[in-house]
Amino acid sequence: MTSPAVSVRTARPADVPEILAMIRELAEFERALDEVEATEEHLHRTLFADEPAVFGHVAVAADGHLAGLAVWFLNYSTWQGSHGLYLEDLYVRPAHRGQGVGRLLLQTLAAVCVERGYPRFEWWVLDWNESARRVYETVGAEALTEWVPYRVSGAALLRLARPDAPA
Amino acid sequence: MTSPAVSVRTARPADVPEILAMIRELAEFERALDEVEATEEHLHRTLFADEPAVFGHVAVAADGHLAGLAVWFLNYSTWQGSHGLYLEDLYVRPAHRGQGVGRLLLQTLAAVCVERGYPRFEWWVLDWNESARRVYETVGAEALTEWVPYRVSGAALLRLARPDAPA
Repeated sequence: MTSPAVSVRTARPADVPEILAMIRELAEFERALDEVEATEEHLHRTLFADEPAVFGHVAVAADGHLAGLAVWFLNYSTWQGSHGLYLEDLYVRPAHRGQGVGRLLLQTLAAVCVERGYPRFEWWVLDWNESARRVYETVGAEALTEWVPYRVSGAALLRLARPDAPA
Repeated sequence: MTSPAVSVRTARPADVPEILAMIRELAEFERALDEVEATEEHLHRTLFADEPAVFGHVAVAADGHLAGLAVWFLNYSTWQGSHGLYLEDLYVRPAHRGQGVGRLLLQTLAAVCVERGYPRFEWWVLDWNESARRVYETVGAEALTEWVPYRVSGAALLRLARPDAPA
């Protein structure tokens, strides 16, 4: 399951065009390409700020092209009184699938957790993405099916923020 | 639904003992009191660091005691190229329920989102917590039932981080 031809390293500013391309490829796969508003400038500002709050790792193929991407940040558990690692995006390009690239990215981030003492490594997956879910279960991740994510956005967020404003 | 006797403000260091008590009350309600490892010292270090990454808002009753708690941090959407607000814990003490305290905390955090330009306000809820889910739907939140949270922790996290280590 290892992928000797692919290595993982932290993202660099020169990776930004390919990172954005992969973010768009992933969104297309997740049937939400129209929701991508990120730009190269956003990514430069976010991943390479003086004290970044969002981090990227990339998988690099033997020919130097990027084979995969992990974008992550720190979350926090009040119960554990500790930060954890939240994986926002994990993506492996179609030509590199089935070679353990996703697992290599997950291993790298698990090692970041262990090194820094973060007790939890978490992410979300679309329920119909069965091939991803199989990989996650193989690496020892547990589906937290008892928890349901909620979101307020757009007009509903404005209404909630300003309950007394005229509609 | 408003609660004129209760006001919301950002947490202060003197609130820490009551904040920890509420974290424990919430964990007990969520049937996971044995998972609480946070201490007053953890909370002081986290919520009141020089540049905190985790934030607290409290609801204060007319008698000065704390009626409720919200603990939150920033998450990030690669699609939107933007931070959002993630609510880790929302709790209203039993004596103050049914008075709109939870809604007041949600309104306050929605206002933080709008003020800072965060397009998304998100959290998780236990699927069996129907009274909370009713409140969330009333305030315009949407259940993201297509997404499944995953977690690696404990021995599985160590194994994933060190795949070549002896078992």
